[in-house]
Parts: sequence; structure tokens; C-alpha cells
Amino acid sequence: MKYLFTNVIGRFIIDDNGSITKDSAPQKTQLKELPTEKINLALEAFKDKKYFASFSEKNKEITKKAIKDSVNEDNLITQTISNITELDRAGNLLVKRLREWYGLYFPELSERIQSHESFVEVILAKSKTELTKEFSVENLMGADLSKADVDEMLLLATQVKALYEVRKQHEIYLEGIMKNYCPNILELAGVTVGAKLLELGKSLKHLAMLPASTIQLLGAEKALFRHLKTGSRSPKYGVVFQHQLIQNAPKKIRGKAARMLADKLSLCARLDYFKGEFKAPEYRKILEEKIK
Amino acid sequence: MKYLFTNVIGRFIIDDNGSITKDSAPQKTQLKELPTEKINLALEAFKDKKYFASFSEKNKEITKKAIKDSVNEDNLITQTISNITELDRAGNLLVKRLREWYGLYFPELSERIQSHESFVEVILAKSKTELTKEFSVENLMGADLSKADVDEMLLLATQVKALYEVRKQHEIYLEGIMKNYCPNILELAGVTVGAKLLELGKSLKHLAMLPASTIQLLGAEKALFRHLKTGSRSPKYGVVFQHQLIQNAPKKIRGKAARMLADKLSLCARLDYFKGEFKAPEYRKILEEKIK
Repeated sequence: MKYLFTNVIGRFIIDDNGSITKDSAPQKTQLKELPTEKINLALEAFKDKKYFASFSEKNKEITKKAIKDSVNEDNLITQTISNITELDRAGNLLVKRLREWYGLYFPELSERIQSHESFVEVILAKSKTELTKEFSVENLMGADLSKADVDEMLLLATQVKALYEVRKQHEIYLEGIMKNYCPNILELAGVTVGAKLLELGKSLKHLAMLPASTIQLLGAEKALFRHLKTGSRSPKYGVVFQHQLIQNAPKKIRGKAARMLADKLSLCARLDYFKGEFKAPEYRKILEEKIK
Repeated sequence: MKYLFTNVIGRFIIDDNGSITKDSAPQKTQLKELPTEKINLALEAFKDKKYFASFSEKNKEITKKAIKDSVNEDNLITQTISNITELDRAGNLLVKRLREWYGLYFPELSERIQSHESFVEVILAKSKTELTKEFSVENLMGADLSKADVDEMLLLATQVKALYEVRKQHEIYLEGIMKNYCPNILELAGVTVGAKLLELGKSLKHLAMLPASTIQLLGAEKALFRHLKTGSRSPKYGVVFQHQLIQNAPKKIRGKAARMLADKLSLCARLDYFKGEFKAPEYRKILEEKIK
């Protein structure tokens, strides 16, 4: 009696006394599947060293395939939002340096332009003489530097500006992915907060499984553990704090607002994961009415 | 009797009973300078509130002028080298992110190219198919991403490459300043280490006044204070450690080599500050012979 046994490395023909041969022409063979009670016998036989190499090879192949297939929108979103965070950090490092450096040349300007982005734009677009007029600054403290010295600063400014532009482009890209993958979260949370929630929740699937109270605190892990350890005040919000609705809410009700927002975000995550309706605009309206 | 008294806000005519008038036509007036014994009287008179505004005004003007005049090569060098340090940090942040992100697409590549700079060059220059051949990688684990996804990564790569280029340009600029300002330090220490020494020493003047033993430890302040506080081992070198001579020296004699290098660097700083001869190549030869 011969049986057919199929495992990850192929199809094998096993006879009653346990000898195994590889089934090289599977289409033509007409054999009975190995009955359950004999499977142990077959598995025992595969402990033979001669199969180890093929097992290992096949195992690697399957793992590689699994890794390849595991890349999905979650990964792309996580990588992009992490990169946006990194770009912000790098941009901040460099723009602070630029302000200080440019301060040797024109120290009065830095305090007059708060926004980093406008500062970079302005010094790239206009000369010191033009800016002196525009901001009506007198008695300049800045040194009269050579063109070469100033050019070096402007080179850095160009670089910082480019970083800002890449950041914007990344946001547009992120929005594109999220529009298909999680339209409800995108609509209610916005690009940045939405992507950060996905990053912190590890994946849309996992985010959809989290209770709203956890979503409310995603990103506040440090404060939460400090609270648990030392009994300090418990945090009221994580990244949801950056949401426009919470930012605009009166300070007193921010905690409550964060809870309501997290409730709706949790619903959005579930709708998106289970490919439900597009209900986010409705939720937004409800929240906007309640939080005033 | 009328006297002339000059102070920061102008020239004044003082008569014997202490009344003061501003001297508006200084060229024509022929008056005696206020004798020393009467200066106190005059200074007393200037406590009058009516002069406060002009004093304050003039004071600001002088301070601004002093600030303006204080900008020199030291500041430019310090700013530029700080900026190079910042660019390195920003570049590292972003390139690590890029490697991880690109890893979704082609994870096998990252470990094959150690240098960050070559990694960026390579992914910008060649497609995945070309690279697969070149590095003879099989069974790819990377996901088949859309062109839009890959373009987003390459956008970041372009940015990182630009950061590296700005860094190089800054080094060229720095070398230009240092060639005139401190040729000996530049020759013996090189651009980066030389500029870092100037940054840590605050100025060429101050660096020239420092003992060689301090120059040896510039940049190792943290370890030095830990040593003084806790009795841990004393540091052997600060930024001089990054010097080629120390890097190439056998580990056993590195401490000694750092001391010798610091000795010569201290001489270089003095030669440069007092506009002495160009002796650095000679020193370099001596050091190269001793440190082997």
C-alpha cells in the first residue's frame, strides 16, 4: 500500500514500511492521502538528515515570502510619519543654527520673524538693505560680511527650505494612501494626527481593536507610566492633544473633549478596518457642536 | 572762566558755577580742558535728568557698534563648524530613516552598503532590478511597491544627498577662512579638528593662551568632570582624538601621541595668533616620525 504525503517541501510517496520517495510527477499519481493515524510515522521519517537542507531552504523561502507579503499600508504610513517627525527635528536643528549664524550679519531680523518658515523665505528672497527698509530697523548691530560669508548662510537656508518642501510632499503622499486605506480616520483626525495614531497603534487592525480610552492616551505612555509608578496626575491625552478640536477647546473641558474625540476615532478605526461606511463628517459635526 | 568737557554724548562748556551748555560748534571754540579737580563737579552736573535720554541713546549706539565690530573670523568659524556638526546629526537622523523605509522595498541592500553616503548615491542612481543583479541577491524579501511609493523614498534620498553636499561646501568655505586666519592650525589639525578646537577654545586668542594640556582635553569636559567628581579614569584626549595621527597610532601610545600633538597645536595657535611663521609642516613631520 502506498500513500501520498504533502508537506512544505513537496509531495512524497510513503509505503507501509516507512520508506519515502519524492513524488516527481504529481499530476499522474493516483494515491490515497496518508491517513491520520499514520502521520506520526511519516513525520518521524522526515527527521532523516537528508531532508534537513531542503526543509531549511523551503523555510527561508516561505519566511521571505511572508515578510514580502506583510508589507502593507500600515508600514508605509508608519515609515512616512516617522520620517516627517525626523524631518521636523532635522529642520529645527538647522533653522536654529541658521538664525544664530545669520545673527552675525543681521541680528535684528530674527526676533521680528517668529515663524521659522517665513524667516527662511525672507532671507532667501531679500537682501539686507531691502529688509532694513521693510522692517524699519536702524543702527544695525550686524557685521558687514563679505558676499562669500553670506552666501554660505543662504546655502544653508536653501537646504532648510528644501526640507520643509519635502515634508509637505510627504504629507500629500500620506494623505493619498490614507484616503483609500482609512478615509474615516483621515477625515476626522487629519493627516498628521491620524498617521501618528496608526504609528502608535502599530497597525489599523490593532488600532481598531483598542478601546477608546487607550486611543485617547496613545503617545502619552511616558506620563501614564509615571502616573502608575509615582501616583502623579494621570495624563488626559496623547497625540489627540494636537487635534484642532482639542487645541481650540477651552482649557477646562479639554480632557472631556479628548475623551469624546477618542470615542469617535475608535469608531472610525473600526469602520475603516472593516470597510464600513464613511461616517467621519457626521462625527465631526457632532463633536464640533458639543465642544465649544 | 569757561571749561570744555567731553564725554560720550558730546562736548560741553561748563562755567565756574556749574551750568552746562552743549558745544554746538566744536571747531571754533577755544577753551581750556576741564582740570582734573573739577571733573567731579562736572560729572555731578550730568546726573541731571535732562541728559539721561541722550546718555542712554549714545550708550546703545556704542554697544551696537562694539557688537558689530566684535564679529570676526572666530565667530564665522564657530558658526560654520557648529553647523557642520548639526548637518551631520540631521543627515544621520534622515539616512537611518531612509534605510529603514527603503528596507520595505529592498531590505537586502542596506547591510551590503555600509557607508551612508554610498547607500544614498546607489539607490538614487540605480533601479532595484539593476541592483539585484549587481549585488547578486536572490529571493527578495522586499515588497513590490508602486512607483509613487518608491519616489517618495527617493525624494528623501535626494534631500540627504543635498545635506551631504552642503556639508562639503561648508568645509571648503571653512578652509578658505582658516587659510588666512590660522594657517598653522589648519595645516596641522585639518579643517574639522582645527575648527572644533577654535570653537571649544572660544577664539584663536583664547586658544593661544591655553596650556597644551588643556588643548589636549578640549572636548572631553564631560569625562574630565566625571573624573574629578567620581575618581573615574581621567580622559586622555578630547577632539584631538579625531586627528588622523591619533587614529592611526597604536592604541597603547595614543595617550602619549595626543600629548605630543597637543603640544604642537598649542605652538601653532600661538604662531597664528601672533602672526608668526608657517611652521606646521615641520611639526607634522616631527610628529609623524615620533608616532609610528
